[in-house]
Order: sequence, then C-alpha cells, then structure tokens
Amino acid sequence: MMHNHEYWMAKALQLAQKGLFTTHPNPRVGCVLVKQDELIGQGYHEKAGEGHAEVNALADAKQDVSGATAYVTLEPCSHQGKTPPCADALIKAGVACVVYGLQDPNPEVAGNGLAKLKAAGIEVIGPILEAECNALNPGFNKRMREGLPFVRVKLAMSLDGRTAMESGESQWITGGDARLDVQKWRAQSDAIVTGIGSVLADNPSMTVRIDEQGQEVDAKTVRQPLRVIMDTALSVLPEAKILYPSSQACVFAIEEEVEAEHLETLQQKGVQVKFSSPGDDGRLDLVDAMEQLADMGINEVLLETGAELAGGFLQAGLIDEIIVYMAPKLLGSNARALFQLPLEVMADAVDLQLKSVRQVGQDLRLVYQPVYLDESEDQQE
Amino acid sequence: MMHNHEYWMAKALQLAQKGLFTTHPNPRVGCVLVKQDELIGQGYHEKAGEGHAEVNALADAKQDVSGATAYVTLEPCSHQGKTPPCADALIKAGVACVVYGLQDPNPEVAGNGLAKLKAAGIEVIGPILEAECNALNPGFNKRMREGLPFVRVKLAMSLDGRTAMESGESQWITGGDARLDVQKWRAQSDAIVTGIGSVLADNPSMTVRIDEQGQEVDAKTVRQPLRVIMDTALSVLPEAKILYPSSQACVFAIEEEVEAEHLETLQQKGVQVKFSSPGDDGRLDLVDAMEQLADMGINEVLLETGAELAGGFLQAGLIDEIIVYMAPKLLGSNARALFQLPLEVMADAVDLQLKSVRQVGQDLRLVYQPVYLDESEDQQE
Repeated sequence: MMHNHEYWMAKALQLAQKGLFTTHPNPRVGCVLVKQDELIGQGYHEKAGEGHAEVNALADAKQDVSGATAYVTLEPCSHQGKTPPCADALIKAGVACVVYGLQDPNPEVAGNGLAKLKAAGIEVIGPILEAECNALNPGFNKRMREGLPFVRVKLAMSLDGRTAMESGESQWITGGDARLDVQKWRAQSDAIVTGIGSVLADNPSMTVRIDEQGQEVDAKTVRQPLRVIMDTALSVLPEAKILYPSSQACVFAIEEEVEAEHLETLQQKGVQVKFSSPGDDGRLDLVDAMEQLADMGINEVLLETGAELAGGFLQAGLIDEIIVYMAPKLLGSNARALFQLPLEVMADAVDLQLKSVRQVGQDLRLVYQPVYLDESEDQQE
Repeated sequence: MMHNHEYWMAKALQLAQKGLFTTHPNPRVGCVLVKQDELIGQGYHEKAGEGHAEVNALADAKQDVSGATAYVTLEPCSHQGKTPPCADALIKAGVACVVYGLQDPNPEVAGNGLAKLKAAGIEVIGPILEAECNALNPGFNKRMREGLPFVRVKLAMSLDGRTAMESGESQWITGGDARLDVQKWRAQSDAIVTGIGSVLADNPSMTVRIDEQGQEVDAKTVRQPLRVIMDTALSVLPEAKILYPSSQACVFAIEEEVEAEHLETLQQKGVQVKFSSPGDDGRLDLVDAMEQLADMGINEVLLETGAELAGGFLQAGLIDEIIVYMAPKLLGSNARALFQLPLEVMADAVDLQLKSVRQVGQDLRLVYQPVYLDESEDQQE
C-alpha cells in the first residue's frame, strides 16, 4: 500500500522539530524526498545562514532525485537570502512534484515560490497538514502576518491564584520539575522579556540551561535567547546578571526619562538600549516595543514577569498563550495576584481556552489561550 | 485458576458503591458469598433500617452456604442495632471463612465482630484492599475515629483564583457540566453546610436533583441531605428556599445573639435550631458545630459557601478535601479571593496534595487534600 501525503508530511514535520531550539530568526522547516513510495533523502533547517531544509534533503539523497516528490512543511522560498532560493534548487534537481504544508505566511510573498515551481512544470500539491505546519512556527508566522511576535506568558501560582506573599516573598512556589520544564519554553524562544521590577527584586539570569535533548548543561554551551527588560527610566544596574552576555541583552526605555550617563555606561558594555514611545498612561507602549522586537527578527517571546507587566501585556492584547504552573498550596487572600487586572463586572472577565493540562512533579501545568474581546465579538455576530 | 481474595473483595466493593447515595448514616458495605471459586450470593446495604450487606447476600444465595467464604468490605457487626448482628447470621449460616476489608473504625468496638466469628470456629482473613474499603466511607470512618464528619469544600473559581467580582457578582463562573458534577458530591453527602451570607445573597435551595444513575430528576423524588446554615445571630428568613423541606433543615446559632420570636417562628416551621458556643473571635465555634453534626449521625459534609466561612473551616483544620472547579477565565485582581485566609509569610502557606484532575466541560475539576501543619510536623520529625 502506498503511503499517503499526510504520512510523508508527518515525517517532514518530525524533522522540522529538530530545529525547535536553533533556527531563529528563521522558521523551522523539514523536507523529505520520496520516489516510488520510498524515502530517498531528508533534511531540516538547523541554523540561520546554513542550508535550508530542501537543500539539505537534496544533499542527503543517495540516488538520482529526478522524478521524485518533495514534501516540505513550508512553501519553498523564491528569493535570494543568505542562501539561494530553494524553489530554484528543486527545479534544478528535477523533482516532479512538490507537496507543501503551509504557504509562506508573509502575505506579500505567499504563493511566489509555488508559482515559480508551477511555471517550471512541477506539480504542486497542498496545503497538507496545514494546522500542524502552522503550529510549528507560531512566532515566525505571527511576525510575518502581523508584524508582532508570538508571546507566551509563564506564571507560577498557588491553587488560590497567588504568585507571592504581600511582602514580595516568592521563591520556590513551584517544584524543581516545573522549573526544569520552563527551560524548554525558554530554549525555543527568541527572546525572554521581563520587567525592571523582577530584575531589581530577584536579579535573575534567565538563561537556557538545557540542550536540544533536554539535558541540563552549562548555559555557555547553548544558544541564549535575547534577554529583554522593560525599564521605562533605565534603572537596570550595569552588573545585573540578566545583562550577561551583554551582546544578548536589550533594554526598552522612554528616551525622555533616561539619564545620559547611565545610558552611555550600558551602551559601552554592549547592551542594546531601545527607545519606545510612552503609552497613554505614561508608561512604555508595549505594542510599539513588541513591534520593534519583531523588526529585529524575534519570533517567539517568553514573558517571565510580575503581575503588573503581565496584566499590561494582557490588556494590550499581546498575549497569545498563558502557561500556568500551579503549585499545590494556598498562599492566602493577602498574597499577590496573578495578573494586575482591575475589572469591575463579570462581563469584562477575560475568557480563555484550555489547550493542555499536564502534571509536572507535584505541580500542574496549564496552557490557555486568551479569547480577546474583538475575536469573541466576531464569533457572536 | 482460582480467583484471589482481592478479586472477590473488589466485587464486594462494587456492590457497596451502589449504596453511595443512600446508606446514611450507616456505612456503605458490600458482601459476596463464594463457594469453590464461584459466586453463590451477593448483597449490599442500601438503606438504614433495612438489611445489612451480609444478610442480603445470605438471602440472595441460591444454594447451601455452609462451607462458603464470605467477603465483606467492613468487619461484620456484633451488636444488636435496628437489625440483628451480622456475625451471628454468618455463624448460623455455617460459612467456613470470612474475609474482611476493614476493621470496624470505631476504636471501642474494632475487632469484636471478628473475635465472635473466630470464637465460633470460623477462619478470619483480612484486611484485604483495606485502603479502598477505607476510602468507601471517609465520613463514617472519620466520625467513628474522631467524632467529626469528613468535610469537602466545593469551590468554583477562575484561573486567577477568584470566586466573584468585588461587587459580589458571581453567577455562572463555571459551566453546566461542572454544576451537574457538583450534584454527585451533594447526593453522597449527609449534609450540605453553608453560611448565612450565601443564603442572604443568593437564596439557594442546594437540593440534590439527580438520581442514583446520575440522571436529572425532581428533587422531591430523591433523598435530600440535611441543609445546615451557619448563622450566628439567626438571621435566616423563614421563607428562605434552603429551609424547605424544613424537616431537613438545621441552623447553628449562638444562643445569646438570637431573637426569641424569630427562633420560635423557625421552630414552629420544623426547622432544627442548634446552639453552639462562640469561638475566641466571638463567632460560631465551627469544631463544636461539626461535633454536634457528627453526634447527629452526619458522616460526609459538603461545604458550599463563600471565602470567609471556607477560610474559617480551613483555619480550624476541619477540611478534608478541597474540590475546585476552575473556569477558563480571568476575573482580575480586584475580584474576591478563594479563601479568606490572611497569611503573612510563605512558611504559613497551606500545603496541599493533588488527588485528581479531570476536565468537566470547559472547566477543570481539581481535588486536593490539605496537609495540615500538625501532620507535616510529624513527617518532618
């Protein structure tokens, strides 16, 4: 029995997953070459500047690929980037058919690669497993479509929805397994975003300390996401752990509130300082900051911060996913809230959709997607 | 291959479960009679005043039971109650062996039934599946051992641990499936306890509206648990829905704070009014009230109330199980807390143990057991 298109696309998806922690700012892409229902070559994109999935699969092929079918999770590119266009490579190799998972999510170029293939007489089939291929690159796709990164907020709380005591005391609400699990979200993110409050309170390093197999390793041996601090008045201390390595640190501030000497000190250390306009409340305009991150090629953001900044992101409609680690504890009614979110009536409550539940050590990990008001209004109409 | 003791005890447990909603104030008990590895009779206790499990199994037997083995989830009783002692019935029937699940949990009588059987020359084996047989009757067992009922508190909250808006607005946080699920907890409870605040705010009826098969039915056709209101100053209105049927309603108050005329009105309607001593804070002593309920034969209590009374029960160490229905919503940081529980430092946090997680409609149902300080201190020593 011949395998169907979904079977081979699933193989290509598995390959693409190998780039989960490393392709930034490029998308994760996988490709398999099939001839007479046999796999004759496979590849995936590992790192920006290195070969794309299609090119790696062609190089991997042990026999003549002319007449073969190429399965690729994302529409092959048609433009010259750091590497030549993949559509050209497939045409040159003589493949007879290209099965794609998802069209290029950038509306300005979507379909160009496919058109180029068709013009060369290649049969083009797709999309196949489109939802899965889309979910592979939530950040890249959102950046292409909306000019914004995909933002996950990670929160640790007690059963009664509290993140810290009133005093701020907060260490170790959740267990070691949960903290290790967080490493996976960090490792697949392009940037970790936090607020100056968290930096001043805890002096975190927010580094990735696992490798691609999920093993604990020295932070220096793995790719580190950009560390981004929301710091209106540029109050971060030059020795803050989160600024090291400084080539991977970025601070957003409001220009008018910044002290020139402090700015210079940070810049001399190699820290990027970006200015963002003040919002209506005089604070950093978070949408503007996220747009700037997208322009820098940031696909996926992990927001690790306190209730106030998390509430601000939520109210700005910037949060795509809420990851809650819930510890089996009650911190009591004086303790600090999960989101700083002053609502008055039930009608204003933020609706969520549960995406997954998993027990992680003694804690529960819950993943939710906010249903923002504009979307739910669409549904009701 | 012969079935082992666990196999037959599991059968007896299944039978016992049939009495889940109906045996109050008696325990749920199941019994099977086995001869040459074949089931020859089975029974369970259905209702107080009617046959016990052993007697029902003997009556069910289609052949001579002499020489048979009786599997019974709880030690057979040795005293004359509303029905004659089961130990005597087993002796008279000539069974050769009795396998029991759990000794009588009342320390003053534990083992008497077994001793009577042994004295009559019957082989006695057990305990078998003791943990399961214990879990079958958490309320009966706790009442026998500690003179207190087993208290479950049921709470409905948002992901951020809130039960209502600041204004008190609270209806329908969780979905219909969760509300139906709550019916099962009510149906297996001997009493539903609530506070006067909830009664005045929502005028709930808190009736059971499902039958033993979990089907929705008219409340009048099924056993109703006792409805209990914690009402220090006896403020409940005579027409409050929760007082009907009044023969199944009970109010706890502090005698000195009660208005004589109002007391008389309620008593004339048939409502039981109980007096409890004031605690150190001048409010009802909850431990005393629960002891009184235990004396009335109340095994399992479902506490359905607001944050303040729930916090009081928790602080008094009275809560055995926390059942949380968590809706996929954020109610925000001004909204009302899950437990009114003013704690200052993390060391005071109430530790819990997760017992189960289940998705119920769009909500999650979480069951936790509090680890009270005295127990955890024991563990640390």
